[in-house]
Amino acid sequence: MDWLDEIRWDGAGLVPAIAQEAASGDVLMVAWMNREALARTLELGEAVYWSRSRGRLWRKGEESGHVQAVREVRLDCDGDVLLLRVEQRGHEPGIACHTGRHSCFFRVWRDGSWVTVDPVLKDPKGIYR
Amino acid sequence: MDWLDEIRWDGAGLVPAIAQEAASGDVLMVAWMNREALARTLELGEAVYWSRSRGRLWRKGEESGHVQAVREVRLDCDGDVLLLRVEQRGHEPGIACHTGRHSCFFRVWRDGSWVTVDPVLKDPKGIYR
Repeated sequence: MDWLDEIRWDGAGLVPAIAQEAASGDVLMVAWMNREALARTLELGEAVYWSRSRGRLWRKGEESGHVQAVREVRLDCDGDVLLLRVEQRGHEPGIACHTGRHSCFFRVWRDGSWVTVDPVLKDPKGIYR
Repeated sequence: MDWLDEIRWDGAGLVPAIAQEAASGDVLMVAWMNREALARTLELGEAVYWSRSRGRLWRKGEESGHVQAVREVRLDCDGDVLLLRVEQRGHEPGIACHTGRHSCFFRVWRDGSWVTVDPVLKDPKGIYR
């Protein structure tokens, strides 16, 4: 498919994909996609990533229930980063991070250290059984 | 510096850095940072990236004038992606992309093709002399 060939996949056949909450604009997380992950995402309308640690496709929420409905997929000028505008769903809506937080970007640089500023919304022990 | 060691730099000593407009929440661009780029960014309060194509530090706006004042730097749970909350400045405020557009993510996937949906705000010929 031509539109897949327009993406500049890296040496491992991957590109980073940013998940941004459509309603709030919050950047939730960054994961990786290969051709199949992107094709599946567009087919399902739900985010499917490539897990580098597990070496397989990973449907977001397959274990946590925290699925991402994909409203829009954008490509940058260089063709090497994807931006997904999503709705973060689940039993507890709005949790994208495996730590039980809204966003994976919960640490802020302050005077030489990374300070955790966002609360845990649900104990991860209750998310991953 | 400890806080630099908490970042999981890749094999090339880099991590991706997302620039997000603080006021609008718009994701403007993604570039790369090494240790020095991040240290300089925090020192200056303006975004400094590592240009992989030029193999050197690149102060955003050094040619275009489209500098990014950095309000906040966040690190994700894995420690391998940075999120910069910025104010996109310059003679023409709000232009982050070298194509003269607000954001680098100006193409949307629609029915099997990437459709350009955002306007050019300034002709690049007038940006890079």
